[in-house]
Amino acid sequence: MADKVTKRADDYSQWYLDIVQQAGLAENSDVRGCMVIKPHGYAIWEKMQRTLDRLFKDTGHVNAYFPLFIPKSFLAKEEEMAEGFAKECAVVTHYRLKKMEGRGLQVDPAAKLEEELIIRPTSETIIWNTYKNWIQSYRDLPLLINQWCNVVRWEMRTRLFLRTAEFLWQEGHTAHANQAEAQEEARKILEVYRSFAEDWMAMPVLTGPKSDGQKFPGAVYTLCIEAMMQDRKALQAGTSHFLGQNFAKAFDVKFQSQAGQLEYAWATSWGVSTRLVGGLIMTHSDDQGLVVPPRLAPLHVVIVPIFRKPEEKQAVLAAAQKLAAAVRDIPRDPYFDYEPLTAKVDDREQYQPGYKFNEWEVKGVPIRVELGPKDLAQNACVLARRDLPGKEAKIMGVPLDAAPAKIVAMLKEMQTALFERARKFRDENTMEVNSYDEFKKKLEEPGGFLLAHWDGTRETEDKISADTKATIRCIPFNRAKETGKCILTGKPSEGRVVFAKAY
Amino acid sequence: MADKVTKRADDYSQWYLDIVQQAGLAENSDVRGCMVIKPHGYAIWEKMQRTLDRLFKDTGHVNAYFPLFIPKSFLAKEEEMAEGFAKECAVVTHYRLKKMEGRGLQVDPAAKLEEELIIRPTSETIIWNTYKNWIQSYRDLPLLINQWCNVVRWEMRTRLFLRTAEFLWQEGHTAHANQAEAQEEARKILEVYRSFAEDWMAMPVLTGPKSDGQKFPGAVYTLCIEAMMQDRKALQAGTSHFLGQNFAKAFDVKFQSQAGQLEYAWATSWGVSTRLVGGLIMTHSDDQGLVVPPRLAPLHVVIVPIFRKPEEKQAVLAAAQKLAAAVRDIPRDPYFDYEPLTAKVDDREQYQPGYKFNEWEVKGVPIRVELGPKDLAQNACVLARRDLPGKEAKIMGVPLDAAPAKIVAMLKEMQTALFERARKFRDENTMEVNSYDEFKKKLEEPGGFLLAHWDGTRETEDKISADTKATIRCIPFNRAKETGKCILTGKPSEGRVVFAKAY
Repeated sequence: MADKVTKRADDYSQWYLDIVQQAGLAENSDVRGCMVIKPHGYAIWEKMQRTLDRLFKDTGHVNAYFPLFIPKSFLAKEEEMAEGFAKECAVVTHYRLKKMEGRGLQVDPAAKLEEELIIRPTSETIIWNTYKNWIQSYRDLPLLINQWCNVVRWEMRTRLFLRTAEFLWQEGHTAHANQAEAQEEARKILEVYRSFAEDWMAMPVLTGPKSDGQKFPGAVYTLCIEAMMQDRKALQAGTSHFLGQNFAKAFDVKFQSQAGQLEYAWATSWGVSTRLVGGLIMTHSDDQGLVVPPRLAPLHVVIVPIFRKPEEKQAVLAAAQKLAAAVRDIPRDPYFDYEPLTAKVDDREQYQPGYKFNEWEVKGVPIRVELGPKDLAQNACVLARRDLPGKEAKIMGVPLDAAPAKIVAMLKEMQTALFERARKFRDENTMEVNSYDEFKKKLEEPGGFLLAHWDGTRETEDKISADTKATIRCIPFNRAKETGKCILTGKPSEGRVVFAKAY
Repeated sequence: MADKVTKRADDYSQWYLDIVQQAGLAENSDVRGCMVIKPHGYAIWEKMQRTLDRLFKDTGHVNAYFPLFIPKSFLAKEEEMAEGFAKECAVVTHYRLKKMEGRGLQVDPAAKLEEELIIRPTSETIIWNTYKNWIQSYRDLPLLINQWCNVVRWEMRTRLFLRTAEFLWQEGHTAHANQAEAQEEARKILEVYRSFAEDWMAMPVLTGPKSDGQKFPGAVYTLCIEAMMQDRKALQAGTSHFLGQNFAKAFDVKFQSQAGQLEYAWATSWGVSTRLVGGLIMTHSDDQGLVVPPRLAPLHVVIVPIFRKPEEKQAVLAAAQKLAAAVRDIPRDPYFDYEPLTAKVDDREQYQPGYKFNEWEVKGVPIRVELGPKDLAQNACVLARRDLPGKEAKIMGVPLDAAPAKIVAMLKEMQTALFERARKFRDENTMEVNSYDEFKKKLEEPGGFLLAHWDGTRETEDKISADTKATIRCIPFNRAKETGKCILTGKPSEGRVVFAKAY
């Protein structure tokens, strides 16, 4: 804890890694590409899960669970998907080990699988193979199913939370009787994701389709939420795919329509992952450490009792515990998803208050309460908000009996302030560019979201991407109506799209 | 839904499978040994998870996540564990597929792993390999960590929920500075499991250690909760292991004690799995279908509106919706873990009320409300409790405005009644036997828990087991103080142990 967090301006990548490490969020494991999600990081993911799960259920979805293993032949059935995922599949070939002479274990060659099994990189194939038996009639539709699970995509270059071989996610897989309803579903989920990103993570996002070059393998089109990190790079934070009838055709899922015809079902799939924890870290944190938006904070309030003399200790600790209990007793509020507010008294005696302030700051706890003999003499305490700098953060002399209500108000203010600050940053770093030279220059300095005209072809996108490493992140729903000329080819463009370098 | 559930008396195994299928709980997948947990089955598991998770957190535990993959050499490090799990390991040997000429995919021989990875059958090894870096000083202890995840144990004979190759579970892994604290932890968790089984699942359990022959590979001893199913067979429902210093030694996890000595850490591990869903089904269900204890019911109340004439429809449906809303608005109650009560109006017009009654009965919804024009004329409704037979189940003429409170009372009564019924059944089928002949006879007819004297040796247990298929399920904490003679060998016995056939 005595380590200092690297400053963003000095080394942004190291700053991120320092926060992940010093806040106790995650670490690399001894298994290549796989991370250990540590308790504090996992607690943030749990808060995310709980809220997302409620939002999915409020929109009519239910959870289920499908096998981890996918027979190799299933993956091969949908060609784009096979193409897209074959190169990053972990493959199970045997189902038994045996003892070697002496010590140690070896794979038992007699226990070879007839057909190899893939660890799911995503579950469209195994799920649509199952849906085949669940869907006979239009009465069986829609199926609105979500799954929380782990998936594996063998990655060569990994980064904690943002890109790991194994990650945790939810994947929704819905089946519909007609195209319009499936497309509406894909849009509805994108709105759930937008609302979660903005209202809960306080992370502003663009919404809209991906270009064909960036869509999901097997999708007709992919909608996305796209956020800007503090290094001005883009982070794809969630995707919702309209899959057309591709998987129904690959797995022969037909139903009898109301009109009595046999038709292929229409599909969507959609997912967000532990990558969101990385997005949260990079959206809000500062050079002091992690900043967590209050609606997703595992711990809302830390109370640091301050005393020098033994005779002060008992009264200060008692007042601290009483305040913590009062915070926990604040009536459950839908703003916090009916979860109780959490408060902790840091009564460790081996550390000084300054050390504790620093530790909780690194860990991103939204509200710190300081409570010493002088405060207690006035029946008051000091409240400090994590996101504000220095003295601005502190409110002195808050009466103890008014503190719980004040804490709730501060948590809500902080949630709003984080979103506004992030939106301002994103908007300030979003700019129109009108020539390829300007594009290349601004992409390097200052960087950010570049709104540029594009001729709509995959070829042009690939050229720009190969040349500059920028990709089309999103074709925003809310883009201005403005035709123009492609920055690369000069051909007609229907409107500006968002280019950026991305994670 | 028109299918009848097989009667328990006719074919118990088929009865179980019928319920799992007809209540929409799970099904076999096309991947050998792996099940699909369907929405209704998963919803029960989610309720279990939420409550268990809260109980773990209330006792100071936090969640984290460790890799799915375990390097083969890690498993080899603890000898008993290697021995115990080697034969049922799924092994990843490659990390890439490639396209075959024409269509299809094949394993890319160039992408062979240097060291094979095992899909975790349990995570002691990967977790203790990680703890090595987390534990330096007594100040780092205890570590009280739980993980919710999937595990794989390649099983040849599978049965939905009870034994599948992949299953979902939680596994706790704690590290302590001394033996006494670790042993206390193992006991504390067993009490959490007992309370969950009895107070939430309404499933009575015996508690106590396993015999050495039945303990977990790598444990010093294993504590268990053991339940009786309706065919009088035992189900191991949860285990809590004291691991001593076995894993600390295998992974070299030492810490500096308060006295300044380098010592190996002490460990526990403990888990319950989706097997509990199977236990719930087999403890309470009847020949009409599933019965779910109210505290774990995903849906508490189904309201079936009854009308023949179109002019009745509107008023009946409106009253049904109003009642459903009133149930949902019942203040959140710790008895139901602060979760809202759930109510659904079954307004499907293509089905008759009788069909609907049957369907919700099969699915185990605790309370059915019948609401027709005659009821409505009296501002009343009929309430029916799932666990009571025929006419006894029904309460006629419950005033609509009193119905929500009456429903809460009935849910609580049902929860208690289920537990009492199951306990009575278990006690009636638990008997002392005093000779090996009597043992073998009673084991077949009537079957149940046989309390018998045993000489305490592994050899005797193995002989009895090979001969009769009964195993020692538990050495109950609360057994009577009574010495005697082993039913097989006649050697001295310190007390009776519980033998039974088991799942």
